[in-house]
Amino acid sequence: MATSPRAGLFAAAEVGHKLEQDDYNVRLEALRVDLLNAQFELGRADFSTVVLLAGDDRPGCIEVAQALAEWMDARFMETHALFGEGRRSEGDLERPPHYRYWRRLPPKGRTAVFLGAWASEVVGAALAGDIEELDFERGIESIEGFERELAQDGTLLIKFWLHLPKDVLEKRLKKAKKSPEEGWQIETRDWEVLENYDEGLALVEQVVRRTNTPDAPWNIVESTNRRYRNLAVAQRIHEALARRLAAPALVPPSAPAVDDLPPVDGQLALDSVDLSATLDKQSYDDQLERLQAQLNRCSRELRERRIAAVLAFEGWDAAGKGGTIRRLTNAMPIANYQVVQIAAPTEEEAARHYLWRFWRQIPRDGMTVIFDRTWYGRVLVERVEGYASEDEWRRAYGEINDFESHLCSHGIPVLKFWLHVSQEEQLRRFEARIDTPYKKYKLTDDDYRNREKWPLYERAVHDMVTETSTARAPWYLIAANDKRWARIQVLETVCRRFEERLAADKKNNKKRKKT
Amino acid sequence: MATSPRAGLFAAAEVGHKLEQDDYNVRLEALRVDLLNAQFELGRADFSTVVLLAGDDRPGCIEVAQALAEWMDARFMETHALFGEGRRSEGDLERPPHYRYWRRLPPKGRTAVFLGAWASEVVGAALAGDIEELDFERGIESIEGFERELAQDGTLLIKFWLHLPKDVLEKRLKKAKKSPEEGWQIETRDWEVLENYDEGLALVEQVVRRTNTPDAPWNIVESTNRRYRNLAVAQRIHEALARRLAAPALVPPSAPAVDDLPPVDGQLALDSVDLSATLDKQSYDDQLERLQAQLNRCSRELRERRIAAVLAFEGWDAAGKGGTIRRLTNAMPIANYQVVQIAAPTEEEAARHYLWRFWRQIPRDGMTVIFDRTWYGRVLVERVEGYASEDEWRRAYGEINDFESHLCSHGIPVLKFWLHVSQEEQLRRFEARIDTPYKKYKLTDDDYRNREKWPLYERAVHDMVTETSTARAPWYLIAANDKRWARIQVLETVCRRFEERLAADKKNNKKRKKT
Repeated sequence: MATSPRAGLFAAAEVGHKLEQDDYNVRLEALRVDLLNAQFELGRADFSTVVLLAGDDRPGCIEVAQALAEWMDARFMETHALFGEGRRSEGDLERPPHYRYWRRLPPKGRTAVFLGAWASEVVGAALAGDIEELDFERGIESIEGFERELAQDGTLLIKFWLHLPKDVLEKRLKKAKKSPEEGWQIETRDWEVLENYDEGLALVEQVVRRTNTPDAPWNIVESTNRRYRNLAVAQRIHEALARRLAAPALVPPSAPAVDDLPPVDGQLALDSVDLSATLDKQSYDDQLERLQAQLNRCSRELRERRIAAVLAFEGWDAAGKGGTIRRLTNAMPIANYQVVQIAAPTEEEAARHYLWRFWRQIPRDGMTVIFDRTWYGRVLVERVEGYASEDEWRRAYGEINDFESHLCSHGIPVLKFWLHVSQEEQLRRFEARIDTPYKKYKLTDDDYRNREKWPLYERAVHDMVTETSTARAPWYLIAANDKRWARIQVLETVCRRFEERLAADKKNNKKRKKT
Repeated sequence: MATSPRAGLFAAAEVGHKLEQDDYNVRLEALRVDLLNAQFELGRADFSTVVLLAGDDRPGCIEVAQALAEWMDARFMETHALFGEGRRSEGDLERPPHYRYWRRLPPKGRTAVFLGAWASEVVGAALAGDIEELDFERGIESIEGFERELAQDGTLLIKFWLHLPKDVLEKRLKKAKKSPEEGWQIETRDWEVLENYDEGLALVEQVVRRTNTPDAPWNIVESTNRRYRNLAVAQRIHEALARRLAAPALVPPSAPAVDDLPPVDGQLALDSVDLSATLDKQSYDDQLERLQAQLNRCSRELRERRIAAVLAFEGWDAAGKGGTIRRLTNAMPIANYQVVQIAAPTEEEAARHYLWRFWRQIPRDGMTVIFDRTWYGRVLVERVEGYASEDEWRRAYGEINDFESHLCSHGIPVLKFWLHVSQEEQLRRFEARIDTPYKKYKLTDDDYRNREKWPLYERAVHDMVTETSTARAPWYLIAANDKRWARIQVLETVCRRFEERLAADKKNNKKRKKT
């Protein structure tokens, strides 16, 4: 059975490819020059390269990575081995699974090689019975989403599945066990691959077929002959790099058909907000005290139960984001939260996918992160001011939903607030700032200029709310002409959502104990 | 006893300072404006501000941090609470203790507030009996060193010790225990402070007196009255900020007296290297195979024993650093090491102390980091090219020794290699590069220009070796006119030092088991 020829995806990778030493040496010498030259050109190009090494031949993946590290210029590449010890690094385990990939993405001009990463992870979990069929489906979908986002951002993705016929795998493992020099590479999991060979390959077929897209195609490489395998991988990397470098520029995919007409009744999302709502001082003080006490208790309990939370604040200039955030933070233990102010990206951030800098700030379990301005800048200021192309901001809705869905699936409540004020109220506050000594620095000429674009922003907010208000991460549109009203609304919403999350956690724990 | 007036350092902080509500409100309003304005100016200034909150009144430290977070502009500051949960974050525990402070240092223009940090750590460890007297001494010295380095880099350090008389502390803890709203802030350790009050204060006196320097003076603040305390701290921060902002520019401290004459016999460190050493191909191949096998074994064992290592490579251009490093990495499991190429600092790095970007790369336990170019750039290229002022590079010797001493004390072997070639050999290699297709990119006009400064670099290397070759972290000067010789020398040294480290670890473990 094991030696019988295999049909389907892996047939071509069981034909017994090999390469003699002399041939290998000659080809390798030329290839190394080409690779280094391509890498050098990449350094001046506007994209990054991500190489994914996966396979039923795990030790083979390591050998290939080792060879690439030798042949290519280590100054412009890094290797991330995410199995064994590499798994438990730097808070990776305390965050949504994809955090570990995002935070390791290379900047433009550089190459990152991943081992034991996304594809292997899904196959491994399915094989180990750690996930059910539905989660397997979701795992594949999340790979598709991740790779599509990288590719659309210009990342060159080169994926390899290193395949060993069953009999070769068995021979190799037995030999490696005997040889002390190779033995270190063999883990229990390698023997498990052999034991579940056929079942595993069926899963791999599913993953590979589903994620074999034009943007991120798989290269299935027979791993039997080491020389053939190493050279095939290196050559493929060079081809892909050279082709991309030769392409004049990425032609952005045409924009998806989106209905650009305003709603037929002319009503935009923000029109539904009743700005006349107010709250008198006494009620405010009473409710503030009660809600802050509740928030303090929730925050402590979230910490104890190791549940993270994300609060995202957007709104018009002078809508009162800062003051509202302070009413939250004043109630929370200072070690439990972090406020992240989003301004222009740093150099390290600008060289990567725009979501990278938000992934970077995702709270570890038990922490709350409050974003003052958020990833929605992509579809607000970047859209209106033209910093993002139409294709980029249109695509961002899906990317953002995907990003938030990673957080929600990890059990992180995601609360998004838009603080809404009228144009008149905003002007009044701008003018008041001139007289308030410690607020005058907040006001810049930009603020006045932005007012002229109010209708464009209104439309952008409408589209944003329409496209990204999901069941798990809805938008809360807050009437903020009255600051007291707005603060209480936000505090109430935060407390309610936190309580719901805590209740769900208690219920789950009970269930877990029962079963 | 507890209520009797205290002599010495804390006398002035037990006089019963207080502030009435009305007075407080009036003063606070003015102070908040001043603070925000000062913070705004800081944003455009060339230094950062670090506030240290420590004290026998730990809950008080939290309250003050909470108040500062409310009064100051959260966009330009961050708070780091390093007790409780905050201790076990992001690989801090897997690295030398000061890593946690370094990696959190704010960039220029910003403020960071630290709680439960360096001073508290030393006092706490001494009180808990976790360290002996000698380590207590070393702890104080390492605080002195750290604060001096920050201050000399221009950081404004503002340190507070919040003091509660014993009877007040006792009352407050009892009250807090009863009140659910405050109870969350109280930890077991707070009761321990009360139990060991007098002993603790004696330790604090030592730490405070020893680290009360002109660059980083302590402010001892009585914590009995919350209003007084909060306002005193905020006011002191404003004063310190305003004074620094008003100072025209930091007058660099006069350079320490250093002997600038060359050695009397005219011999420089590199003159002692015998460049005629060579190794024939056969011996090279034999030794390479043997040493790489040994290195592979050592690397695996270091990983298992969770011992990190740092290899630092410097040398003339074209001395063969890259090739030597590859001979090391080819022998090591790819998940066990990382090569860090040091080029120009990024924006985030340039806004901080020059050692920040090296602290950032310190390996976690079990990992080896190989630096291709290092922190010695400060006393080599930055000195010769004038990028660092004379005062800066002279001071760097001590800072570097201190940095490496942190690594050594954490059990990390630190190996520093200078690859030495003659000027003639370097020229020969430059010219050969023009003909080697995949090396031609390595050659720039700079390389030729640098050759003119050879004598200046020779002198810089001499001073560097003289000043920073310590018993625990010596320099290895490697004759590299013959590449084979150089590679074997480096491999041998690495293997020897790794074996020594492993032997020491085994010995320690045995001892630990015995006792």
